[in-house]
Amino acid sequence: MGAPTVEDVARAAGVSRQTVSNVLNTPAIVRESTRERVERAIAELGYRPHAAARRLRTRRSSTIGIHLDPYAGGISGVVLDRFVHALTERASERGMRILVYAARTPAEEITRMGELADEGEIDAVVLTGTFHGDPRMAWLVDRGLPFVSFGRPWGPDDLTASAHRWIDVDGAAGTRAATEHALGTSGRRVAFLGWPEGSETGDDRERGWREAMAEQGASGPRLVVEENVAHARAVAAAAMAGPGHGLDAIVCASDVLAIGVHLAAVAAGRTVAVYGFDNTPAAEALEISSVEQRPEHVAHGALDLLMGPEGSVVAGPGDAPSAPAHLLVQPRLIVRNA
Amino acid sequence: MGAPTVEDVARAAGVSRQTVSNVLNTPAIVRESTRERVERAIAELGYRPHAAARRLRTRRSSTIGIHLDPYAGGISGVVLDRFVHALTERASERGMRILVYAARTPAEEITRMGELADEGEIDAVVLTGTFHGDPRMAWLVDRGLPFVSFGRPWGPDDLTASAHRWIDVDGAAGTRAATEHALGTSGRRVAFLGWPEGSETGDDRERGWREAMAEQGASGPRLVVEENVAHARAVAAAAMAGPGHGLDAIVCASDVLAIGVHLAAVAAGRTVAVYGFDNTPAAEALEISSVEQRPEHVAHGALDLLMGPEGSVVAGPGDAPSAPAHLLVQPRLIVRNA
Repeated sequence: MGAPTVEDVARAAGVSRQTVSNVLNTPAIVRESTRERVERAIAELGYRPHAAARRLRTRRSSTIGIHLDPYAGGISGVVLDRFVHALTERASERGMRILVYAARTPAEEITRMGELADEGEIDAVVLTGTFHGDPRMAWLVDRGLPFVSFGRPWGPDDLTASAHRWIDVDGAAGTRAATEHALGTSGRRVAFLGWPEGSETGDDRERGWREAMAEQGASGPRLVVEENVAHARAVAAAAMAGPGHGLDAIVCASDVLAIGVHLAAVAAGRTVAVYGFDNTPAAEALEISSVEQRPEHVAHGALDLLMGPEGSVVAGPGDAPSAPAHLLVQPRLIVRNA
Repeated sequence: MGAPTVEDVARAAGVSRQTVSNVLNTPAIVRESTRERVERAIAELGYRPHAAARRLRTRRSSTIGIHLDPYAGGISGVVLDRFVHALTERASERGMRILVYAARTPAEEITRMGELADEGEIDAVVLTGTFHGDPRMAWLVDRGLPFVSFGRPWGPDDLTASAHRWIDVDGAAGTRAATEHALGTSGRRVAFLGWPEGSETGDDRERGWREAMAEQGASGPRLVVEENVAHARAVAAAAMAGPGHGLDAIVCASDVLAIGVHLAAVAAGRTVAVYGFDNTPAAEALEISSVEQRPEHVAHGALDLLMGPEGSVVAGPGDAPSAPAHLLVQPRLIVRNA
């Protein structure tokens, strides 16, 4: 009668219900031969996780809320938009819906989340743009509304704390990959162009460059600018012209800075390897190498953290034994012939 | 007893219910002094349109669906994302929710819209990326699901057809503004760099340049390239070096093309005024002048078209006597010192 269930798939594939759920939700932890058998059964039976979600309707909305900032300009907001696109696709595959809501301040966002939860419109939230001491996280924990954050708690315990579920991108690993690529292909004088010390994201990215340089006994200047193309261009032009003019490569904390360096190189007719961060469309258009945050992986992981083996939202990390309480996504270096 | 109503506001401001609704939904059609009086009453009473929407809950979901494409790269997708951000904000102010859904093809989108409507999850749709003979529009009309499209029908009757509600940006007006600015500030030799003939959007933008040039008795070459930075850079470099090297300005069909022209100018150490289209973050970062589509205005207009005086979704254009069946938004030229 009607649509096939998880049980039907499990029986056909000769595995447990749990294994079917793992294939759907955390395929990386399932042995390949098993995964193939389950996927075959899913295809043959025409099983759709969506139907399962529909059956939960009476108890749950099957809807995840996510905040969309007002548009603020700048090339980097694109990363978050890509994440929302990917989350929408992934959630749809799992029979979940995405409701977007607006809020201009953390306080307003708390009000909004409260309204949506009160009205039964959402049963989970994906938080973005988290910061140290974020009041939204405390509120969500208090309220008992399941959530996962894109962004670590950024505290001394950030990598081990499991008070809530989070996913983030390993920024240091990204600049490390860029630096190692530069050392391997361009030369040993690799500079880092970053923001003033004190920003968590910026310090993390600087560390990847510094450690990779130290490991290979190389050294290069650390240049500091604000997040601004014209400023980055001026500093890069000076660095190329000055006594340290023998730079082989410049690893940057962002694509904005990399664009400035690129313009300085074009104007000077110089060849310097440039690496940005975020792989924004602007870097792509200018053919600048860049570290890609892999928003699609982040979206997949966020749902893995949020949804239990049934494919429905779980109340807390304890309810999803197969899912860890946090994930640190390894970024990927996109090399271009800039 | 409880929250103030539209009637309370109307009584306090000494206007009709209809006028209060107009202030909330189509403020542009209300006399300024009246609007101020109503806004004062709204503020004093603490009236929230949101509460009205909530009362409709039993009959309607108060939710508008909008499709989010998988991320496809390129700098121009940002315009659509800005529109979604703005739509989310505006809808929230009016007590409506935005549900985003994924679909890879028009057929899949039709299936998805059907499911969401069947399940009572949405009661209206905002269509994007429309094209001539779009099957989604025919389906929506058949199904009787209220919708508005961001994008005109692109047919011989596009500006007068009222078979459905649409909003679009007047592309020709944008390139006309750029061309007139160039003629007024840079000189009379203004080129147009666009895509091969036959694209509706591209032909529309070319027309704005051509007509503005003809009106002032000026002339300049029309250069044709594909949507690609490197290609645009090469063609612009050749145009600057060739016999027509006396170009004063280049008006482009997109920011991608403008970025190519900008790089050619930087490499050649030349000063040529460059105008892009879409005012993407990349153009902003490179300080290139560009025509802004005003996604916030488009979002506002889309909701005006979709929602009746009560602030709820109306079934068809006939139900919203104060709203026209379509709107053509005038874009805005952002001038930068590139």
